[in-house]
Amino acid sequence: MGTNTSQHISQQFEAELQDIRSRVLAMGGLVEQQVADALNALMTGDSELARKVIIQDTQVNNMEILIDEECVQIIALRQPTAGDLRLVTAIFKTITDLERIGDEAQSIAQRALNLAVADRPKKNYRELSTLGNHARGMLRDALNAFARLDVDAALSIAKEESARDDEYEGIIRQLMTYMMEDPRSISNVMDLIWSARSIERIGDHAHNLCEYVIYLVEGTDVRHLSIEKMEEVLDRG
Amino acid sequence: MGTNTSQHISQQFEAELQDIRSRVLAMGGLVEQQVADALNALMTGDSELARKVIIQDTQVNNMEILIDEECVQIIALRQPTAGDLRLVTAIFKTITDLERIGDEAQSIAQRALNLAVADRPKKNYRELSTLGNHARGMLRDALNAFARLDVDAALSIAKEESARDDEYEGIIRQLMTYMMEDPRSISNVMDLIWSARSIERIGDHAHNLCEYVIYLVEGTDVRHLSIEKMEEVLDRG
Repeated sequence: MGTNTSQHISQQFEAELQDIRSRVLAMGGLVEQQVADALNALMTGDSELARKVIIQDTQVNNMEILIDEECVQIIALRQPTAGDLRLVTAIFKTITDLERIGDEAQSIAQRALNLAVADRPKKNYRELSTLGNHARGMLRDALNAFARLDVDAALSIAKEESARDDEYEGIIRQLMTYMMEDPRSISNVMDLIWSARSIERIGDHAHNLCEYVIYLVEGTDVRHLSIEKMEEVLDRG
Repeated sequence: MGTNTSQHISQQFEAELQDIRSRVLAMGGLVEQQVADALNALMTGDSELARKVIIQDTQVNNMEILIDEECVQIIALRQPTAGDLRLVTAIFKTITDLERIGDEAQSIAQRALNLAVADRPKKNYRELSTLGNHARGMLRDALNAFARLDVDAALSIAKEESARDDEYEGIIRQLMTYMMEDPRSISNVMDLIWSARSIERIGDHAHNLCEYVIYLVEGTDVRHLSIEKMEEVLDRG
């Protein structure tokens, strides 16, 4: 193969990798919007916005399938190795988590529809709103870490998630006391509990995204490690 | 390359693919056992069994990481195409779902620990037990479909799951009425609700496994399709 031809192929390959990364970021952007809209619909009782989130889930699903196909094509035709292969496998996993974040946004939107027509005592929503904002922030930061291949950012988001777990447990306990105080509210409070659960899972998925960024950049699989162990393995902290 | 050498390489590659499939089935077997033990612990209040499930989750996590590495190695060294590549990418996704089933088993075991020391009214457990057996059955059948590359079996398990969704909704409604009738039971009943949720998710993951079997054998991505659409695409039904 002449130098020009192989240079040409390598440039084309670079362009393909660039393209697939942009698509992942576009999918991430849409999922972020879905989460933001679902949380807004929940907090304000906006049924129309909730319905929009539910309908748009199809778009997220389609993006997953298309990017997935592109990954398989790249492996089959370009036979990537080392860092390029890690990028493709990290994307495989990233889009699965993004799609599931989309599912959680859809669940929240479903709960928002139920709650839109119910009594909306302010105290029930306040802490949920904080939890939701934290999860949104984690997702945004995780996508930024992916865009910039920023391992330090990824690590600090993973740290953040442990703090959120305690916050979540506290909110669930709080909501359970509301049910005990007023059993007639059980059905509505359950919708809030399911929403809290979905928000917590969005944080879990954002944590996974960070692990893929670390794998992609460092070549180290840090899944299932404690934060301390992660820092040790990555020689940080 | 001489015919003997290339034959040798191809035999070795075959053996590697065989090996990785066996590992996935071994991981599946362990996860099945985890689910069975977690459900038994929940139904009988066996704290020791519950603790065993929680401890063994590490083993499931390690298996995921090892198989994942093997998949990346195969792609890098063997540059598989067509059916072989589909096998590897399907395995990538399969082990992610298996690992998450393991997480759900661990969650159920945690709830079982809470409930072991509580009042255990029989009526609260009866329907949960049925739901649990169905989810176990779906997981077992999905793993068999993977072992035999059986698309028809995979399709009928996917069908089965839709029926389970209604069963799950019914149980959640039932458990909510128990909370309303006896608000002092809320904390215990919540543990049952979370368990039901975990069982339902195990069914969801088993459904995903079936979709990967179909993709692997037929080369068709059927995710996010309705059962009717799936049958149409696969020219069945």
